[in-house]
Amino acid sequence: MPPSTTETGQGLRLSVVHPDPQARAEWRRALQSLLPAAQVREWAAAAQGSDPSASAHATGVSPGPGGTPGAHYGVGWRPPAAFFADNPDLAAFLAAGAGIDHLLALPGLPPALPIVRLEDAGMADQMFRYCLHEALRRLHHEDDYRAQQRAGGWQELPARAPADLRVGIVGLGALGGAVATRLAALGFPVSGFARGLRQLPGVRCRHGAAQWPAFLAEADLLVLMAPLTPETRDLIDAAALAALPREAWLVNVARGELIDDDALLAALDAGQLAGATLDVFRIEPLPAGHAFRQHPRIRLTPHVAAQTLIAPGARQVTDKILRLQQGLPISGIVQRARGY
Amino acid sequence: MPPSTTETGQGLRLSVVHPDPQARAEWRRALQSLLPAAQVREWAAAAQGSDPSASAHATGVSPGPGGTPGAHYGVGWRPPAAFFADNPDLAAFLAAGAGIDHLLALPGLPPALPIVRLEDAGMADQMFRYCLHEALRRLHHEDDYRAQQRAGGWQELPARAPADLRVGIVGLGALGGAVATRLAALGFPVSGFARGLRQLPGVRCRHGAAQWPAFLAEADLLVLMAPLTPETRDLIDAAALAALPREAWLVNVARGELIDDDALLAALDAGQLAGATLDVFRIEPLPAGHAFRQHPRIRLTPHVAAQTLIAPGARQVTDKILRLQQGLPISGIVQRARGY
Repeated sequence: MPPSTTETGQGLRLSVVHPDPQARAEWRRALQSLLPAAQVREWAAAAQGSDPSASAHATGVSPGPGGTPGAHYGVGWRPPAAFFADNPDLAAFLAAGAGIDHLLALPGLPPALPIVRLEDAGMADQMFRYCLHEALRRLHHEDDYRAQQRAGGWQELPARAPADLRVGIVGLGALGGAVATRLAALGFPVSGFARGLRQLPGVRCRHGAAQWPAFLAEADLLVLMAPLTPETRDLIDAAALAALPREAWLVNVARGELIDDDALLAALDAGQLAGATLDVFRIEPLPAGHAFRQHPRIRLTPHVAAQTLIAPGARQVTDKILRLQQGLPISGIVQRARGY
Repeated sequence: MPPSTTETGQGLRLSVVHPDPQARAEWRRALQSLLPAAQVREWAAAAQGSDPSASAHATGVSPGPGGTPGAHYGVGWRPPAAFFADNPDLAAFLAAGAGIDHLLALPGLPPALPIVRLEDAGMADQMFRYCLHEALRRLHHEDDYRAQQRAGGWQELPARAPADLRVGIVGLGALGGAVATRLAALGFPVSGFARGLRQLPGVRCRHGAAQWPAFLAEADLLVLMAPLTPETRDLIDAAALAALPREAWLVNVARGELIDDDALLAALDAGQLAGATLDVFRIEPLPAGHAFRQHPRIRLTPHVAAQTLIAPGARQVTDKILRLQQGLPISGIVQRARGY
């Protein structure tokens, strides 16, 4: 068990893991400045290119595989199994992101270790703007006006107000709920679909398999913001795409596995779907030669809809660690049985 | 002088003029339903394809050039000189739009006739969304990600927050002021430039020739929302474009004459300006073969950033007519000396 501590983190040991050395160093620095009395170290397998001297210098702890006591808390992204072997006494692992499906799938993950998701930390704002951009593109006939410009045309297309574009959001967690309420506040008719009953201001909330087709039928813009779980894998299949209004547009900012790729391509080819904006994919980077890469009605971004902002992320992680140390409840603890 | 009247418009005669017969008919119907006791007629020169029988049927007035008494109020868009000749006793002309430069330039316009601009009437909402779309495009590296997709790349570009995109708005009237405050509320650093001193929540307001270069120097996104007047004609010339930050983006939703077209093309060629989104032009439709038409860094829309919504427009016009009839002050009266 970690020792009791003060607001400065006296006596605590934190280990930061991240596949990107720059992000790892930034997380360490941010956590160290928030918990100046704690020992904050970077962990990296030899192949990940760690620089133990940097963290030793910063913390006064002698690092090195095997030679250091394990950390009380792990913080970071995509920890390999060896991370947990080196840190057998973790009280919790605090993920530096909201989607923790890859973590739960890790073979070396200790079965009883509490996993804590990052909640929002600047991501909801980014997601909102990403989705709003997509909504405005549709509202403003963006693709049609671009095609018209290329063709030399000059046709005024019907003015559309937000009331004319029904938005459906799958997943009403911290991110999906924030995007839903903020789009609704701008005048878009927003429906949300969640695992269970939800209440959100201005949003028509649906749940349960029986309401799924009705939810889809009123989504001119369908936005996927659900976690990847056994229930959501391949959720957007041929039947779901067929239930959408004709010429709907699909946006995926959650996980690639939510979509059946072949069904999506077929719906585009059939004209059932007007297009799709995809930020996430089953394999990232999306393999060269994948049919999505050059599809004229698929817009790609390389998993950037919500980039983790380290400063607010580190503040949230620090707050949660100090609450756990005081025996207080925290939000964001993953329920492994439901998958998020 | 028009007779005193009631809320239903008893005894009033209105004449509706519009180059688009469908819009003209919609305006007449909307005004008639708001002023059921008034005589609301459509006016059209023979060449404009009027259908006098429709209005005669609706109002019980025998129309026809020369055969009817003149109207008390004119309402509409782009009235030709003959309209004023047919209606010599107008108390006011209420324009069905916010930009009245073409009207003031009309040779047959009676010199003392009060002209009233439409203020907002749903246009500010549309302008806000049009400009927000442009701001989000820049924030999200839209053009770079599209180019990357075409080239088969997969590079994450730096995340940008609204704080990273400084917006400058030229013209802080009913429309420009609304767009400025709403973009500022979303976190964009917004500066505004107006003819005189202004105060808007969250907006840095500048005015006067001395502040013009400093205003331009902090506009990553420069949005033109000023009326066309002798002072604003060719406002965006080579010097103004050179004063912008490198790789700024220009948006024009006001009037084409605000921009020196050749200077704009030169600034694009020199790489000083990243691109421009243009909704208005010196000649509309923009002539085929104009250099803007196929320019890879100019986005065109055919004067649709704020389409007049007839229902709220007719409500505003009706309110103003009834206030004028009661001797009450109204807003939106054009000051011809300043040009708007």
